[in-house]
Amino acid sequence: MVLGKVVGTVWATRKDEQLVGMKLQIVQEVTLDYALKDRFVVAVDSVGAGVGEIVLLAQGSSARQTELTRNKPVDAVICAIVDKLDLVITKDEAPATAA
Amino acid sequence: MVLGKVVGTVWATRKDEQLVGMKLQIVQEVTLDYALKDRFVVAVDSVGAGVGEIVLLAQGSSARQTELTRNKPVDAVICAIVDKLDLVITKDEAPATAA
Amino acid sequence: MVLGKVVGTVWATRKDEQLVGMKLQIVQEVTLDYALKDRFVVAVDSVGAGVGEIVLLAQGSSARQTELTRNKPVDAVICAIVDKLDLVITKDEAPATAA
Amino acid sequence: MVLGKVVGTVWATRKDEQLVGMKLQIVQEVTLDYALKDRFVVAVDSVGAGVGEIVLLAQGSSARQTELTRNKPVDAVICAIVDKLDLVITKDEAPATAA
Amino acid sequence: MVLGKVVGTVWATRKDEQLVGMKLQIVQEVTLDYALKDRFVVAVDSVGAGVGEIVLLAQGSSARQTELTRNKPVDAVICAIVDKLDLVITKDEAPATAA
Repeated sequence: MVLGKVVGTVWATRKDEQLVGMKLQIVQEVTLDYALKDRFVVAVDSVGAGVGEIVLLAQGSSARQTELTRNKPVDAVICAIVDKLDLVITKDEAPATAA
Repeated sequence: MVLGKVVGTVWATRKDEQLVGMKLQIVQEVTLDYALKDRFVVAVDSVGAGVGEIVLLAQGSSARQTELTRNKPVDAVICAIVDKLDLVITKDEAPATAA
Repeated sequence: MVLGKVVGTVWATRKDEQLVGMKLQIVQEVTLDYALKDRFVVAVDSVGAGVGEIVLLAQGSSARQTELTRNKPVDAVICAIVDKLDLVITKDEAPATAA
Repeated sequence: MVLGKVVGTVWATRKDEQLVGMKLQIVQEVTLDYALKDRFVVAVDSVGAGVGEIVLLAQGSSARQTELTRNKPVDAVICAIVDKLDLVITKDEAPATAA
Repeated sequence: MVLGKVVGTVWATRKDEQLVGMKLQIVQEVTLDYALKDRFVVAVDSVGAGVGEIVLLAQGSSARQTELTRNKPVDAVICAIVDKLDLVITKDEAPATAA
């Protein structure tokens, strides 16, 4: 799964009928320090994540394995809200924690 | 899903028979400011998007989860036309809106 | 789908038995101006595309949705031969056509 | 599969109910010399890998082919713990071994 | 499919039980001139490829469409050993052959 931050919402009136009623969140990928990367995806929210929260994204066919998204044209789903990361090994091999 | 802009159409007479009758749109990916990126894909249109419109693309096996594309050799589908984005957090952590 | 140009053929005597009899074409990705990019893939040809032709590639599980490739270890298939592109919006937002 | 190193753990109380009880490891990709790359993914651990271990990741729908992850919104799974690599050909075509 | 060269083998005693008995080869991607690229993947070998051979890789769910890999947590499989490439069009549009 990919680590991201919810930064906004997409409004779309005309859409595939299977997407009606789904919340479409804009999730920007983040580093292990929660710094925003350039990459973003639009994801269906299955866990009630709010803007500003750090989340996990499941992508591809795995994004269709929630009750909300099964058999729907959805390729990214928010499947968890992150409380914290326990980072034991960093790039310089020194212990570190990102909360 | 990926955010893109419809920039044109592909004409193809000789194709897999399962693609007959499908509109093949050229969708260029865009940033959260709707600026065109270098990447583009050719997508089947399931929602009647016109050239110039900002759309959402579902890719991979998820592109086959619309009535139009089920079980067909299609790996990208336009599944929504975007009205607007509500961007609450930007790269500099300041509120912003892209309409 | 991805836009590419057929630039050659792969010869492989020893292969998974499900690939026997399939034509394996080398397809180099192209820009909207048909300029060759660095990326290429080897794809099964389901439409009789010849070397030099501009084609559409379906990738991933969608590559297995043709009669020829169903349930086979194939992750890229040529699913259409492109006649022309109608480009209405270019990077500079000016009308253009690539034939 | 991709080669990576377990560098930490994700804590997430609010998540899709199908993820309850799963250990979510942060796996940073490594080179053939086990040097950390910039890319990381969050993966479910199906083999009891500890922090610091070199592992193999299966991604996409293949990540759902373990007993633990079947039909769940999981797109990356640790499927093996690496003992060693036997590298016969290196970039300079000279024999080498990474233990 | 992707073109690669077998450069070594992965040893892993602790692994998902569905991987027991499978040969895990390290395959480095190559250019059309067989020059090694930076990217590599670990793939299950379904055709008996030896180190140094040029092979085709099927990835994603397509990697599970061989007898050996069906329903297993495998996302890359060697599905063919390449004899030669017939390159008719090169980057400079001049005929060429890579043997």
